[in-house]
Amino acid sequence: MFKTTVTPRFGDIDGLKHANNIAIAIWFEQSRNPIFRLFTPDLDLSYEKWKLIMARTQYDYLCEMIYGSDVTIISYVSKIGKSSFTVTQEAWQDDKICAIGRSVLVHYDFINKRSMPIPDDIRKALEEHFQEDTQIYK
Amino acid sequence: MFKTTVTPRFGDIDGLKHANNIAIAIWFEQSRNPIFRLFTPDLDLSYEKWKLIMARTQYDYLCEMIYGSDVTIISYVSKIGKSSFTVTQEAWQDDKICAIGRSVLVHYDFINKRSMPIPDDIRKALEEHFQEDTQIYK
Amino acid sequence: MFKTTVTPRFGDIDGLKHANNIAIAIWFEQSRNPIFRLFTPDLDLSYEKWKLIMARTQYDYLCEMIYGSDVTIISYVSKIGKSSFTVTQEAWQDDKICAIGRSVLVHYDFINKRSMPIPDDIRKALEEHFQEDTQIYK
Amino acid sequence: MFKTTVTPRFGDIDGLKHANNIAIAIWFEQSRNPIFRLFTPDLDLSYEKWKLIMARTQYDYLCEMIYGSDVTIISYVSKIGKSSFTVTQEAWQDDKICAIGRSVLVHYDFINKRSMPIPDDIRKALEEHFQEDTQIYK
Repeated sequence: MFKTTVTPRFGDIDGLKHANNIAIAIWFEQSRNPIFRLFTPDLDLSYEKWKLIMARTQYDYLCEMIYGSDVTIISYVSKIGKSSFTVTQEAWQDDKICAIGRSVLVHYDFINKRSMPIPDDIRKALEEHFQEDTQIYK
Repeated sequence: MFKTTVTPRFGDIDGLKHANNIAIAIWFEQSRNPIFRLFTPDLDLSYEKWKLIMARTQYDYLCEMIYGSDVTIISYVSKIGKSSFTVTQEAWQDDKICAIGRSVLVHYDFINKRSMPIPDDIRKALEEHFQEDTQIYK
Repeated sequence: MFKTTVTPRFGDIDGLKHANNIAIAIWFEQSRNPIFRLFTPDLDLSYEKWKLIMARTQYDYLCEMIYGSDVTIISYVSKIGKSSFTVTQEAWQDDKICAIGRSVLVHYDFINKRSMPIPDDIRKALEEHFQEDTQIYK
Repeated sequence: MFKTTVTPRFGDIDGLKHANNIAIAIWFEQSRNPIFRLFTPDLDLSYEKWKLIMARTQYDYLCEMIYGSDVTIISYVSKIGKSSFTVTQEAWQDDKICAIGRSVLVHYDFINKRSMPIPDDIRKALEEHFQEDTQIYK
């Protein structure tokens, strides 16, 4: 499980004074960095070194988030398949869970343009961050 | 069914030279404008006039989209409930469907902070844009 | 001179119900596409083909822009140097000029990591889109 | 002087593998939060409490920033006028200054839609964060 903190910025807030769904998607993306580092420790984006492609994102917006208070993002691996895995993420503000994200990422070879089985050592690293998916809005 | 066109911008493209998942979310959001107008024709964002809150977005990324070619977004209503409805969206580039989006929107009273049944006249307007959800990756 | 149209999206609007300065920067960036095409007609982002790097952006926000009305962006070349040039852009909504942007772009060789003189044929193309910089807030 | 840290996200990086100019603008905006708090301590975005409007942003991009390394943003007040002031910001990555930002903000009454003199107590707070503008690319 990884825990990161994001600070909402002025422009993350929409006309109804709550964090826009795109802002929340950005917070979740930023908080996937530690998981990306399991595959590419230095986050080098060359085709030789980067190994992940996004297949699906699904975000549930449970309550409204505001500007003036930091947001804690909890990220963990909730499913590990042969060549893909799922990251579940929770966004907490003021002790309330306000959004749940799930993203499916595929281990991918950008040079030969095909998915690849997740290697054993990385699988082991993913398993260390495995957690049952939250029951809320499962 | 609504058809809109988006032009990818330089910064929509990520380090692997394809449209970032956040960029695609932004294209889908922009293309929901005609559906928002069924509820608030002038898109006035006051609590008195704006009536929609986002409950869920789910996006599937089927193939990579590039910078130099416009993207056509097809948007239609694929489910109508008592107080919520689902918008399905397809992103097409160079005659290929490259992303499918589904967003669940709730008819909402921002002053009393509660969901409301969709009024009959708007329900009729939504029905005019109803289409069976795509079978791809259903 | 190039004329493009952008449609504000829900999330472009900030908590004070006007287009956020970042949204305006994005609209200007998207509207530089036709100028980028003078250098790289197919907008191919490979180091071999892409030739421009951003040195400076300066945006003046003259009046507030709202959600429900399209924005016209006027873009022209206002200065041409040896290896760099300036693009001036105007954002118009409802017949009012609401923002002025100036960006300085450098003709750049990404492989050898150095600026390069603008070739004669492209210089000629830039000159075709030359216009005196606006007097407003010059 | 305020010092904040931003973590680049995957999508902040453009097709040439460097932080996009919009991403940098977003980092600067986020890092203005402590200065916004001098005017509105809880960052409440109501017209009654929010007091700032953006008049100009000017960003100089001095060197390329990459994905895998945090960025330190230094923010200080470099000019204080009657009703407006300038915030200068520096973005540092791996001990190099890679971008300089200047933004002009106006003390503004959103209800009566007019600029207002900066009150004495806030002026004093701004002065505490005053610093001569950097000489680099002044």
